[in-house]
Amino acid sequence: MIKFDEKKKWESVSGALKLRPMIEAYVDQVWEAGIRNFCFLGIGGTYASALQVESHVKEKSAIHVCVENAAFYNYTGNRNLGRDTLAVFSSVSGTTEEVVAAVEKLKAAGANVLGFVDTPDSPLAGMSDFLVTYDMNEQLKLFMVADRLMYLAGDFPDYREYYQELDAHLPRVLVEVEKEADAFGEAFAQKHHRDAMHYFVAAGNQYGAAYSYAMCYWEEQHWLRTKSIHAAEFFHGMLEIVECDTPITLFLGEDAQRPLAERVAGFLPQVCGNYTLIDTKDYALKGISEKYRGNLSHLVMHAVTERIDAHIERLNRHPMTIRRYYRTLKY
Amino acid sequence: MIKFDEKKKWESVSGALKLRPMIEAYVDQVWEAGIRNFCFLGIGGTYASALQVESHVKEKSAIHVCVENAAFYNYTGNRNLGRDTLAVFSSVSGTTEEVVAAVEKLKAAGANVLGFVDTPDSPLAGMSDFLVTYDMNEQLKLFMVADRLMYLAGDFPDYREYYQELDAHLPRVLVEVEKEADAFGEAFAQKHHRDAMHYFVAAGNQYGAAYSYAMCYWEEQHWLRTKSIHAAEFFHGMLEIVECDTPITLFLGEDAQRPLAERVAGFLPQVCGNYTLIDTKDYALKGISEKYRGNLSHLVMHAVTERIDAHIERLNRHPMTIRRYYRTLKY
Repeated sequence: MIKFDEKKKWESVSGALKLRPMIEAYVDQVWEAGIRNFCFLGIGGTYASALQVESHVKEKSAIHVCVENAAFYNYTGNRNLGRDTLAVFSSVSGTTEEVVAAVEKLKAAGANVLGFVDTPDSPLAGMSDFLVTYDMNEQLKLFMVADRLMYLAGDFPDYREYYQELDAHLPRVLVEVEKEADAFGEAFAQKHHRDAMHYFVAAGNQYGAAYSYAMCYWEEQHWLRTKSIHAAEFFHGMLEIVECDTPITLFLGEDAQRPLAERVAGFLPQVCGNYTLIDTKDYALKGISEKYRGNLSHLVMHAVTERIDAHIERLNRHPMTIRRYYRTLKY
Repeated sequence: MIKFDEKKKWESVSGALKLRPMIEAYVDQVWEAGIRNFCFLGIGGTYASALQVESHVKEKSAIHVCVENAAFYNYTGNRNLGRDTLAVFSSVSGTTEEVVAAVEKLKAAGANVLGFVDTPDSPLAGMSDFLVTYDMNEQLKLFMVADRLMYLAGDFPDYREYYQELDAHLPRVLVEVEKEADAFGEAFAQKHHRDAMHYFVAAGNQYGAAYSYAMCYWEEQHWLRTKSIHAAEFFHGMLEIVECDTPITLFLGEDAQRPLAERVAGFLPQVCGNYTLIDTKDYALKGISEKYRGNLSHLVMHAVTERIDAHIERLNRHPMTIRRYYRTLKY
């Protein structure tokens, strides 16, 4: 398998899960201080992850979680964020300018800031009231915060059992998904690596996955054109431009919004002969209880799309690390 | 001017503004009953309008407004919506299945429902606790509700002056914008009516405008392919696929997020030779105070895009009323 280091992957997920006691200690302290207003902040890919957290929390809990796009917040503001707010964000570089400005503004409003910053000596690391420095696994980190909050609110009584399963199985499961998905990823890449446009459709916690996959991977890293659309919104406009050869990929997860994606799966064969379904149900996830699979659909999907990426990168001879304009031009 | 009935347009806006006392009476009653949780519900175009309301309210007020996509709500739910909630929606047909299901669910949760339904003898009309039946002007109706709520919360002290200006000038102003925009609309349509893909970029209350224009007009009504993207998000992925001939239209409004759109306007000329700026600042809006222009940017933009539509429809000989699959196929 190209671009796949099993040991490194396993250890990366395993290490991320080990951050949990540290996260719990801080989240518990914030909760005990009476904070009940939670804001997940991001832009681009990290905004997409925040949307996934929001979908996850809304399905299970009444705790008040809002998503703020850092740039929207910098200009439009949000008068409901202040001293009683815990703001949570993730950043690899620790320098994203919109997030730096937003965190400054949040801190000026009195908010508590929990930052997951991969680069320790960066502006965003220095600005976090509580800092967790660990590479990658962004969604897992953010979900650990949200899950702890739901546990504290009494909306996640089996929190301990759930994380026992993840601790015991998730690193292996995600490695296995990549292995199971590699042949598919290669075939998919062969078929679509030169598409003039590719559509990604998804619902629930897969919507953020599709939004970020289309934008942060195909557009930003492969320089391939895409559009992502929520499965429910697909039926209110986009469906009309679908023809027999329109390349469409539908992400199917296992959370509460699965039926919205299934509706698209039922529609597509009538009008399109160039669609692909990627269904997390096709992966065994050995050791993970049925009732928890939906919580992990976005991680499973990410493991699958990583295999597509590895093959597109090789076929297109386009290193995913290069950028044409981002942080290259002045704008 | 093709497809333009000045008198009808004028009277339509004027009549919508006359709904205000009726809206105020109901909103005031709900406010007096202690309701402080406001939800704007929609799907497709009406979801986009709700996003515009949210952006408008966040900029000016701390009142708690959430946007619910009807389909997301039907599956994911929202435990924060209940007896202390006023849900507001708009529907032309009164039959949109996702909205019917969502309103049923909201009512079962105890929410109060204010419906703007153009078709009186429809399911959604029958389900509204308070029903306003008047054709079109969806955004104006929804904004009147939001503005009254902000007035009641003390966040819109010049509410009366503002609406005095709208009552006195808005119908004429929107007619004038259409007339001023017609030559532009025709030239734009001539250039882009056969585009294989067209990108729309916008921020603030223009984001909903771009989202709905791309999806509900170009995709659904013209069967032309589009992607819409928020101006802030544009810099986190999509920028990399822009080339000299990529057709991009940037909507510039006058609300607090205008600088986010201006940033795109500054970037595009460096890498693209096929972009168009549509700037609400280019329209006189005689009689409207400078400080209120931002509130109306989305209505101004809609008046401009209506001129584009009229010419695309004629050039493509594709009647905007026909649908290929929507409400035609079973899915």
